[in-house]
Amino acid sequence: MARKSSLSGFPEWLPQERLVELHVLDTLRRTFELHGFSSVETRAVETVGQLLRKGEIDKEVYAVSRLQDEDTGAAGDDSLALHFDLTVPFARYVVENAGYLAFPFRRYQIQKVWRGERPQEGRAREFTQADIDVVGDGALPFRYDIELALVIAEALSALPIPAFQLRINNRKLAEGFYRGIGLTDTPGVLRSIDKLEKIGPAKVAELLKTELGATAEQAEAALSLAGIRTEGTSFVDRVRALGVEDPLLEEGLAELEQVIAEASKRAPGKVIADLSIARGLDYYTGTVYETVLVGHEALGSICSGGRYDALASKGNRTFPGVGLSIGVTRLVTRILSQDFAAASRQVPTAVLVTLANDDSWSAAQDVAAALRGRGIPVEVAATAEKFGKQIKFADRRGIPFVWFTSEDGTHEVKDIRSGEQSAADPSSWTPPVEDRWPAVLPQG
Amino acid sequence: MARKSSLSGFPEWLPQERLVELHVLDTLRRTFELHGFSSVETRAVETVGQLLRKGEIDKEVYAVSRLQDEDTGAAGDDSLALHFDLTVPFARYVVENAGYLAFPFRRYQIQKVWRGERPQEGRAREFTQADIDVVGDGALPFRYDIELALVIAEALSALPIPAFQLRINNRKLAEGFYRGIGLTDTPGVLRSIDKLEKIGPAKVAELLKTELGATAEQAEAALSLAGIRTEGTSFVDRVRALGVEDPLLEEGLAELEQVIAEASKRAPGKVIADLSIARGLDYYTGTVYETVLVGHEALGSICSGGRYDALASKGNRTFPGVGLSIGVTRLVTRILSQDFAAASRQVPTAVLVTLANDDSWSAAQDVAAALRGRGIPVEVAATAEKFGKQIKFADRRGIPFVWFTSEDGTHEVKDIRSGEQSAADPSSWTPPVEDRWPAVLPQG
Repeated sequence: MARKSSLSGFPEWLPQERLVELHVLDTLRRTFELHGFSSVETRAVETVGQLLRKGEIDKEVYAVSRLQDEDTGAAGDDSLALHFDLTVPFARYVVENAGYLAFPFRRYQIQKVWRGERPQEGRAREFTQADIDVVGDGALPFRYDIELALVIAEALSALPIPAFQLRINNRKLAEGFYRGIGLTDTPGVLRSIDKLEKIGPAKVAELLKTELGATAEQAEAALSLAGIRTEGTSFVDRVRALGVEDPLLEEGLAELEQVIAEASKRAPGKVIADLSIARGLDYYTGTVYETVLVGHEALGSICSGGRYDALASKGNRTFPGVGLSIGVTRLVTRILSQDFAAASRQVPTAVLVTLANDDSWSAAQDVAAALRGRGIPVEVAATAEKFGKQIKFADRRGIPFVWFTSEDGTHEVKDIRSGEQSAADPSSWTPPVEDRWPAVLPQG
Repeated sequence: MARKSSLSGFPEWLPQERLVELHVLDTLRRTFELHGFSSVETRAVETVGQLLRKGEIDKEVYAVSRLQDEDTGAAGDDSLALHFDLTVPFARYVVENAGYLAFPFRRYQIQKVWRGERPQEGRAREFTQADIDVVGDGALPFRYDIELALVIAEALSALPIPAFQLRINNRKLAEGFYRGIGLTDTPGVLRSIDKLEKIGPAKVAELLKTELGATAEQAEAALSLAGIRTEGTSFVDRVRALGVEDPLLEEGLAELEQVIAEASKRAPGKVIADLSIARGLDYYTGTVYETVLVGHEALGSICSGGRYDALASKGNRTFPGVGLSIGVTRLVTRILSQDFAAASRQVPTAVLVTLANDDSWSAAQDVAAALRGRGIPVEVAATAEKFGKQIKFADRRGIPFVWFTSEDGTHEVKDIRSGEQSAADPSSWTPPVEDRWPAVLPQG
């Protein structure tokens, strides 16, 4: 379907495409709730001061102001802007409502966010994210780092997408290693390593040398670390074989070993240790996650996140957390563009109740009400056109069943796919379970 | 719960309040889908030109622009603003996608909208609307005017709110009547009549005389019409008794009679003919609807809409429609402030699996996975604290069941409300259906 949105970077779906998106959203919500995560929504706007606290994304931020703002009181830090992720708003929400929340607090949040980026496939200006986080008050057990990887693996496994791979690293491991070889500008090294997939190891080595003053040996060691990628916990031995010693490195190794050991046991084939994972943002302090669709690595990460020692703080109280964010619009765009899945029909309706004549509309409503009372989605024809036209109405929408009522008050229902027609009672007839609601089915 | 949002007019709910909102949203969605309405979402922004086409709401519109907009190309009509309702965006969507939609097209749309109004209870700057519309291509059978009233009555009846009353009028009836008595500025008369509830009949008569040049007799006749409010179709005789004749009046009378006759039969006590209903917006051309909560009339309309001959047009093609919009945030705010309903617990979790010691975490995950496999929401404790502390963790959140596994591999489950504890098997134990998910229950 070659349709272009009228505003670049602001995708809108047709009804049958929206059914695929709804299926994705419902599946994520159900998985999150089965794991005890509470739904939270925050307002779409934050103050500019709040949004820019964490750094350098300001070029992409959309400001919001009254169209006719004669009495403009708000300006500068107090002026408003659309949120660009769900982490910053959630941090504010936790601080504001700390007195009303039970910690550790686990929430999911599925909302649109806005970024004034250059649009391309997989990168929109308005898009939906689905986040889960667990936040503690003062402390947060490390086990949540494992649990969140498992919840995400379960959630993604339930979606109509190709195989995926959760790539996990640990900031302590990286920082300790760099320190151990004498490189102390950890953010700088991470920024360079983050470019590995884009520019290749030779250019990363060049960056490390020219921008961070690394020696050839230091650059080589950093690249050796980033080259380690294992399905199980053998990365531990491979790191040790590099001969670097540092207490923080040991702490990171032990943490990542725990995550990989448990996750690769409980979600085999879906999780790897990947010591090149750096994550752009500064606030991660331990475990970091990225996720790719196998065979679609160029799409970028479909789900990322990590552990942060202080998501937020309030006086001398800090709230450490761990969380992941799924790029729902990126996933849905790819599902649709690659036909990974499709809805079985365009509309919720399972049954169209036809009209034999115009006076029968009210009786047809009775039939519809009886069917709906048993949870069957029904439409009633609006006018008594020829039956052929009424059937065509259903056919064009993929509605599987049409209902006929005779003058003697008996009823028949026809499956317009098979042409089969049989007597039916409004108080008991039920469609096959797979026809009741539109299904979203994997294709190919 | 005396909690104030940190930004006036931008409400945010606590997790247990959000459960009430989710219940409202899920209930509306289910009713709409049972009636065959397709879900559509449009982007949050429109061009300013698109938004202001319909008139005078520009003072309330929020403009959107890049925070650092050196290269600002967009300005004036092409610049962006947040949508202030879901009708204008839907009209654009229909025009843009007309080639891909099957008409009559019925859609529901549940999204946030933004208006820079002065906030008060029931009036927020960011709020959620739930709209349903049916749109035809060239023509749209009148029966949809009846059907939409019935769908809305069914949807509102399923919500935890007090009794409501759908008040219905017809623009043709009003316009024909005014013309019949010699008043031709219909929008002007409607604007005056719209103030009836606020300023009373004496002042409305004054307005009609001073601003529209009406005679005392004309003002009296207009007020007599607006005073008619009947549960059945007796309004027809009462209008005729006023002795005004006009073909458009007859057409409107016949239409409203059909709507009231059918709707008061199928939704008794929930629908009245109210000839004072005017609706502010200009584009309605026939049936108009407003809805009040009985005993909460000062809250304003919780659901409004009407029939429009041309929701949108494209060349010489027009798309007539009929639609209604529910003010979800207004309803939820009132439900919460008046304690009409509350969630049975704070979190989705039904069972907390405890840890006897730290090594049992993985086995506890097996128990949790078995329960979740049968659709039971479960959390696993993160650390092996004393059982008392783990039970307190569950208690603080309202989690009804805690699960214990002994060293010999046997299991017990405790209902912490009753204290009752009994043997249980992870592969078969199921909580009572009312405990599986948090319920939203009417209060008082």
